[in-house]
Amino acid sequence: MYGYPKLLEKLIEELSKLPTIGPKSAERMALYLLRTDAQQAKSLAEAVVNAREHTRKCKVCNYFAEDEICPICQERPRRDKVICVVEDPQDVIAIERTGRFKGVYHVLWGKLSPLEGTGPDDLPLKKLLSRIQEEKIGEIIIATSSGREGETTAQYLRQLLKPLNVKMTRIARGMPMGSTIGYIDQATISEALEGRREVSA
Amino acid sequence: MYGYPKLLEKLIEELSKLPTIGPKSAERMALYLLRTDAQQAKSLAEAVVNAREHTRKCKVCNYFAEDEICPICQERPRRDKVICVVEDPQDVIAIERTGRFKGVYHVLWGKLSPLEGTGPDDLPLKKLLSRIQEEKIGEIIIATSSGREGETTAQYLRQLLKPLNVKMTRIARGMPMGSTIGYIDQATISEALEGRREVSA
Repeated sequence: MYGYPKLLEKLIEELSKLPTIGPKSAERMALYLLRTDAQQAKSLAEAVVNAREHTRKCKVCNYFAEDEICPICQERPRRDKVICVVEDPQDVIAIERTGRFKGVYHVLWGKLSPLEGTGPDDLPLKKLLSRIQEEKIGEIIIATSSGREGETTAQYLRQLLKPLNVKMTRIARGMPMGSTIGYIDQATISEALEGRREVSA
Repeated sequence: MYGYPKLLEKLIEELSKLPTIGPKSAERMALYLLRTDAQQAKSLAEAVVNAREHTRKCKVCNYFAEDEICPICQERPRRDKVICVVEDPQDVIAIERTGRFKGVYHVLWGKLSPLEGTGPDDLPLKKLLSRIQEEKIGEIIIATSSGREGETTAQYLRQLLKPLNVKMTRIARGMPMGSTIGYIDQATISEALEGRREVSA
């Protein structure tokens, strides 16, 4: 009984380490990479190496940067004196896409998680404290996720930043756009009721 | 509004060219590759290049090979004088895994498909003809897929090989193991009835 050549097996193995990729998908991807034109396979390999080697964390906000400081922080003097604290770099993208936020960010690259062993010292919180003072920040928007660990992180931030006397806000929770009450979980409905706003007639 | 750094965007773009990978999966995979240890990203890139550069088609049967001739064909003198004609290299793996086939293969790397513009000249059929004569083959098992294009290819092969006077068989169609009649499509049920075999009491 024969299998695939060793180098192909190795490629399948490496691909199946990627998130959400099972052995069957990895096999399909690997076979595709062997059948497609050589340039495309090479481009993928180069893109992995290049992105990995030349992308780093912004010295100020920890978002992705190709230089020392990311483009958002480079534009800092022209931006609002508001820091939005998020868990992951993809959260920055999601907020930037709305075009509604003109402040800067602070990326934690994680959240407090006893299960995963992430404590306060694993998050760049000292840097956040000194930024608030140095950049004369007027408001901190806590935009960690709305699950248990995100809430714990938000609560910890509130305690930590309290002595600084800076305005702190938490992003609103409620019904997502386009949703129907009947399909929403009870916790979200409770939050949506709690956070109701007066509307004019 | 800012997006990801260019090199990260490039990586997402390259990953989303892979089969079944949409932009969201590609983003998740790219972010993973930036967060995981550098060695793992490098191993993936190397695996792509190595597999691509050192895997070729076997000179005899067109299956994957790292040398001129694949291990299955190298073992040819000890194998049965039967060629199993399959569409894709992964079909070889699937059959080898059963451990029930002791012959050799001929991989077409495709099937006749007017839609995709694949005609008889695009498949390695001349090579198959000369193999049958040179290797003194006793039986050709046509194991192309059971859809319309696979059937057309099988039919074409039957016509093409007829003058050689070699025994030709087609793999059986019927109910897959573990299936229930109520869940099987009508075409398969018809084939299963047609191909029924007598059993002893």
